[in-house]
This record gives sequence, C-alpha cells and structure tokens, in this order.
Amino acid sequence: MSILAVGSVAFDAIETPFGKVDRTLGGAAAYFALAASYFTPVRVVAIVGEDFTEKERAIFRGRKIDLTGVEQVPGKSFFWAGRYSQNMNERTTLATELNVFADFRPTLPAVYCDSDFIFLGNIDPTLQRSVLTQIRCKPKVIALDTMNYWISRTPAELREILKLTQILMVNDDETRQLTGEHNLFRAAKHVFEMGPRTLVIKRGEHGALMVHDKFLFSVPAFPLEEVHDPTGAGDSFAGGFMGYLASAGRINAETLRRAMVYGSVLGSFAVERFGVERLTNLKRSEITKRAHLFSKLTAFKL
Amino acid sequence: MSILAVGSVAFDAIETPFGKVDRTLGGAAAYFALAASYFTPVRVVAIVGEDFTEKERAIFRGRKIDLTGVEQVPGKSFFWAGRYSQNMNERTTLATELNVFADFRPTLPAVYCDSDFIFLGNIDPTLQRSVLTQIRCKPKVIALDTMNYWISRTPAELREILKLTQILMVNDDETRQLTGEHNLFRAAKHVFEMGPRTLVIKRGEHGALMVHDKFLFSVPAFPLEEVHDPTGAGDSFAGGFMGYLASAGRINAETLRRAMVYGSVLGSFAVERFGVERLTNLKRSEITKRAHLFSKLTAFKL
Repeated sequence: MSILAVGSVAFDAIETPFGKVDRTLGGAAAYFALAASYFTPVRVVAIVGEDFTEKERAIFRGRKIDLTGVEQVPGKSFFWAGRYSQNMNERTTLATELNVFADFRPTLPAVYCDSDFIFLGNIDPTLQRSVLTQIRCKPKVIALDTMNYWISRTPAELREILKLTQILMVNDDETRQLTGEHNLFRAAKHVFEMGPRTLVIKRGEHGALMVHDKFLFSVPAFPLEEVHDPTGAGDSFAGGFMGYLASAGRINAETLRRAMVYGSVLGSFAVERFGVERLTNLKRSEITKRAHLFSKLTAFKL
Repeated sequence: MSILAVGSVAFDAIETPFGKVDRTLGGAAAYFALAASYFTPVRVVAIVGEDFTEKERAIFRGRKIDLTGVEQVPGKSFFWAGRYSQNMNERTTLATELNVFADFRPTLPAVYCDSDFIFLGNIDPTLQRSVLTQIRCKPKVIALDTMNYWISRTPAELREILKLTQILMVNDDETRQLTGEHNLFRAAKHVFEMGPRTLVIKRGEHGALMVHDKFLFSVPAFPLEEVHDPTGAGDSFAGGFMGYLASAGRINAETLRRAMVYGSVLGSFAVERFGVERLTNLKRSEITKRAHLFSKLTAFKL
C-alpha cells in the first residue's frame, strides 16, 4: 500500500566534525520519503521554491517517489543551517529561513486521495488537519510527528488532530512536554487518552521505545563506528517504520515490532553519510543484512 | 561458583520525590552482593564502623551472604547523602563522609582465597590490585568497576589493574573519559587494548550495551511506571550480571547475553523501592518472570 507523506522539503547547510556542506537536499519529508521508498510507493505533499531543480527531482525519481503533490512556487525553498559539536551530541541551529514554506497550504492531487497510510510530518496541526479533510477514503493508518513549538503554541489544534491519529511518533522531550509527565511509560497513558493507541518515542543514539496499549517494544540504535551527520535520523526512522508497515498492509504486534526494527535500520543508514546521500543508493540486501544484525544485537535465550 | 566482591558498605541518606530516608544500608558492595545473592554464594570484602549493627548484618544474613571479610573498626561507616530532582534525572550529592573507608586496606580471609569470580568494586586501583595478590588460585573471571576520580587521579595504577581484568563495567562517561573517545564502539577497541575483552557500558534509564571483541549486545532498561530511588541501580545491575555468570560457571556469548538481561532485571527491581529494600525480599519466580518480560520487550521476527 502506498504512503502519503506531508512535510518539509528543504535545503540544509550542515557542519559536523566529518565535513561541511553548504546546500544539500533536506527536510523531514525528504528523509522520510527516501527511507520509506525502500518498502512501498511514496507520495509527497510539500512546497518548494524556484531553487528546487531537476537535480533534486532526480534524487526522488531515482527512488520512484511521486512528487505530483510537491507545489513549486516563486521564491526560495525552506533553508536550515546547523552545526554539530565535536561529539555530535549537541546541535546549534545557525539559520532557519522558512521562505516559501511560510505559506504552505497542502493541496492533495486527486490521485493521492485514496492513500491508505498517511504520515503527517511536523508542521502546523491546522495544516495536518487540512490534509486529512482532503482524503477521500478513510485511511488505514494515520501517523503524526510534532514538536515543542506546536505543543506549546497550538495545543488545542494539536489535540484535535491527535484524536484522528493512530500512531504518534515523537522524541522523549516532546512526549514529556505534550503530557506533562516525565515517566515515559505513564506519559504513554496520557497519549492514549488523546487518541493514538501507539506511541513511538524516538531516542536518538538510545534507539526507540514503542508503547502500545497492549505491549511494549524497545529497539536500540545500531552501534556505528562513525556517524557522519545525524541530520534526519528521526525522519528516516519514521520513513523506515511507516514504509515497512504500509508494505505489510496490516497492523499487529508482529508488524509493529518489525517496523521498529526497520525504522532503526533506516535511521542508522541515514547518519552514515551527509544529508540524504546514503538513502539514495541503498540495496535491499543491505537493509535485510542490517535488520539481521539487529537480531544478533538483541536476541537472547533464557 | 562463588563470587568475591570488594567495595563500599555504607549508610545513605536519600531524598527523592517519593520520600526521604535519613540512614539506610547502602554502598556499591551492598547492592552488588544482594543482587548477586539470588544466583550464587557471595563473599564480601569491605570495612564498616561501629554503627554497622546486627540490624545490617541480618539483611546480608537473610541472603546468606558471607561477611567474614567485612572488617569492623572503631569509628563511623562510609556515609553518603544525596537528593534526586523532581524528574530523577539529576542527583545532587549533599555529603560524602569516607570515615573508616578512608583507611580501607582489603584483607581476604583465608576461606576467600579460592574465589573463582571476582568483582572489584569502584575503589582505589591500588587496593583493587591488593585484592588480586591475595587470591591463591587464578580466578576464572575478574570484573572491575571504576569512576572518573580514579581515571583522572591514578591512571597508571588503573592501567595496571585493567591488564588483569576480563570485564570492565562502567558508564558512558567513564568509558569516554578512560579512552578519550566519544564513540562508544570505538572506545571499546581502546579498552580491549588495555586488557578487558568485554566492556559493559551501563546507561541508566537507557539500559546497557556490551561490546565483546566478537559480538555486540544491547539490553534496554525495564520501563517502570514508578522509580522510587535510582540509588544503586548500576551496582545491582553488576550484581545480577556477575551473579548469573558465576552461577552459569562458564563465559560464552550465550551466558554473557543472559547475564546482561539478569543485570537489567536486578537493576530494575532495585529502583522500585528505597535503598536496598527490594533486593532483600525478591522471589526467584519474580526474577524469572521479569526476565521473560525482557524477552517480550525486545524479541521480534524478521
């Protein structure tokens, strides 16, 4: 089944101890779509400026990602610049220029309107909602990402969209801020009352924890010798997670666990190179091999 | 096989959002010994003052822990006071009074000298070494804990004892400080060059990572709804880990993985109540049950 993903497609300037790039394709929806594309067809809804060229289109085309829903308008694309500390454990945002993204009003092409799996990337909850109103058939799964900004600025709108959401994918801090509860296990119970029955907490180098109303599942991050660029790790996790789920076509304890593993697999690949580079040239055999390494990393017999 | 554990036996004053105790049995060797006692006979080498009474002895006796090597001298026992923040994620040390611990010179009773499994708790590396020189037979496994203080103050002495050590059990920061390497995977390679073939990195609420020269293994912390007192979690992890290994009697990929799980199981029980309380009254069936919950928490099929 295909996935519809809405979110940012951007240009990033990134500096890490391993190097520096002044302008590379980025944005949550780009990482998400590329990661998910290894599992299932992906349709993107986003806005870009005139600086989005054939070069960037070719990256998506190389992964057969549908860009019909990417609106191109006069002006510049969303631009983000950031620098990582020597140890990669701190990130300083040097610039955030919304540009054309400031006026983003997601419009779904008619061909998108039967999408079964929806990923509402981290944008204004009002816009997330407007995507859902344009979906013709009832989607099978709606997953949502959000951030501190929307949790504090638009709490009512966020609550509305959460009512319609099955899977919430956020990080530790966002979980805590949304629920006012430090303990993640208790925080999940608050989330369940808001709508989602599944909370996926992304924990960066510590992996991810899924709290479902029937079970818990924990997956580590893959221990890598060299992380070149952590940008987009969480979005790639989300792409691997949702991509696998959509390819499986059904949601149960088994597929959700496997989705966590494929999420962590794609996240681990994403950070091996700068920007989206590693996500453009993966082989399916590399993904399978790393998933089996996760098995070795976590399996034990009592 | 029995374990010999050397380290601190102390009194702690602890304040957490769940309550406050002014004086409760503590110290790394106490947590370690109690946790390990569920798997194998434990012998303790430590020093206590006159304030160590029949009440404290009874706690160890209740778990059949051998205190022949616990020297009692005039003065007060090691005392530590700490306060945890509202979210338990920060700890402020309010007092550290070494008292009789300042003059600790570990002396092994003759009956201890054939110990096969040795746990050198976090004390002066020179004292850790003196324990080994008193062992008659070559121990099967020597595991060592240390801390930032010894890494920076007595690096040469620490290097000497590490040459004799098979398993190093430390936290993230200690691993990084010891090796000068932020990436834990690369840090482990430095550790291997120092002596140990197995590095166990304790990561608190994020579980633990084992880097062995042949394989990696990751275990999460058990997601608990209520952590009453995080004190001694790492020492209880070490106790469960070493206790299980000693009971298995052999070191291989299978027993090391299982040891990581039992370490995390005992750590999770320790934090459920104040001080050592929960470690004094566990049932073997509770330990087995929680180990199986770890299996549910981490298992997946590809």
